[in-house]
Amino acid sequence: MDELEGHLKKFQKEMSAGTVSLVLLGVLARADEPMYGYLIAKRLGEAGEGVLAGKQSALYPVLRNLCAAGLLDSEIEPSVAGPPRRYYRITATGRTVLGQWTGAWTATRDFVDGVLDGRITQGASA
Amino acid sequence: MDELEGHLKKFQKEMSAGTVSLVLLGVLARADEPMYGYLIAKRLGEAGEGVLAGKQSALYPVLRNLCAAGLLDSEIEPSVAGPPRRYYRITATGRTVLGQWTGAWTATRDFVDGVLDGRITQGASA
Repeated sequence: MDELEGHLKKFQKEMSAGTVSLVLLGVLARADEPMYGYLIAKRLGEAGEGVLAGKQSALYPVLRNLCAAGLLDSEIEPSVAGPPRRYYRITATGRTVLGQWTGAWTATRDFVDGVLDGRITQGASA
Repeated sequence: MDELEGHLKKFQKEMSAGTVSLVLLGVLARADEPMYGYLIAKRLGEAGEGVLAGKQSALYPVLRNLCAAGLLDSEIEPSVAGPPRRYYRITATGRTVLGQWTGAWTATRDFVDGVLDGRITQGASA
């Protein structure tokens, strides 16, 4: 891997640290019924591969952390074919946290976009 | 600090890990001349306080890391009043990296926004 690619990988990894949790809460808040990991990954689709750096397996530790923090609940259910599956649903606390995080995300997003397109720093001169 | 506040702080910290570097490259790419840390913080203004979690001092280690990675150059210059100041400017490599990171930022941003407003997962049903 060349050096520039290393910088990019590190940057993407740092950005995904916060956003994957936000995205998982967002998907489960809109789900009509509990979802299992593979189904969540499928719903996120190709667009999600970049954010997850192509690794669907990266979802599982994040789902476990969100459960441990009380933002998700999970339940194991037998499947018609194959091994039993763990289904996840968002908790009431998870919905509250999603609201707060969405606010923080929006503020960060607008700030970063503002800096990148020059709106935020152009007005202020030294 | 209550538990919800703890979740929010952790989320904001995770998001700032990647975005502070991006924002610093963005500011210095648009600067007409080298800038010192306090001036950068002032330009980012109040909007930046949320992203930096209110800590201007958080900029300095990130500036040092960007220098060590060759994305910024720095130079110490005497100031008219007070101690000498370290001035930062973006390098050619830094501009290349800024272009790549801006692309990665845009993809992540559009993905997260798409999930939060239901565009990405609503079409796909189980």
